[in-house]
Amino acid sequence: MSRKRFDQMQCGVAQTLEQVGDWWSLLIVRDASLGIRRFADFEQSLGISKNILTDRLKKLVDHGILEKTRLDEPGVRFEYTLTPKGTDLWVVLTAMRLWADKWVFGEGNEPLIVRDAKTGRAVKRLLAVDENDRPITPRDLEWVLQRE
Amino acid sequence: MSRKRFDQMQCGVAQTLEQVGDWWSLLIVRDASLGIRRFADFEQSLGISKNILTDRLKKLVDHGILEKTRLDEPGVRFEYTLTPKGTDLWVVLTAMRLWADKWVFGEGNEPLIVRDAKTGRAVKRLLAVDENDRPITPRDLEWVLQRE
Repeated sequence: MSRKRFDQMQCGVAQTLEQVGDWWSLLIVRDASLGIRRFADFEQSLGISKNILTDRLKKLVDHGILEKTRLDEPGVRFEYTLTPKGTDLWVVLTAMRLWADKWVFGEGNEPLIVRDAKTGRAVKRLLAVDENDRPITPRDLEWVLQRE
Repeated sequence: MSRKRFDQMQCGVAQTLEQVGDWWSLLIVRDASLGIRRFADFEQSLGISKNILTDRLKKLVDHGILEKTRLDEPGVRFEYTLTPKGTDLWVVLTAMRLWADKWVFGEGNEPLIVRDAKTGRAVKRLLAVDENDRPITPRDLEWVLQRE
């Protein structure tokens, strides 16, 4: 592949980094996927300043990752929920979690297990598959640039 | 799960963010996985300042993600290559790339296809599987905190 053409605009990794914004944004998405919906709860969970949290929530809403909804309750005015685009980030979060389980915490020391509620089977890894869900081994891959 | 106990020290997502450091670090890992090894080549590919690049390379080496090797060539003194821990970040990079393909570029507009060099089958998604490689659907999952 051509190195020079592979600039950040054409790179999915860079685009995802652009839209998720920064570490705080990804931790907000993590919290949202664990059920947090309100400003004060994000603030408490993350230990983040109000102005940074306000800014990051706005950016996530602007990118269509979170949806902001006005509530009818007295005292609480808004809640934030993941859109389908935001929900789909669970794969990114899972990839990060599993990498840390393997390389930071180590086997047997995983701080969190994610498992199927019915069968109890835990998510152990992410398998790269083709369109028919047939596994593709990470060895022997090639990169094909699709456009200029 | 208990919200308060799920602090950043116990969170694999936060740990991965900690070790990869910032967006630059992850883009350096991306470039390394695409074959870049030398300071000047990272610098050119990323359009990054020398002092930031120096800092991020050092942190990645300190975390055991990159290995720095002295070369015997005149003029070029070092090269940086991914360790097994660093190579394993391809799952995180792939998750980001596939998310952007779906939600930023859209089907048919993927800037880069990653495929098996022999069969031509492209990596379409990452499938969550259990220890026996049986798929686990992202619906109906539960989170189990393993320790205090």
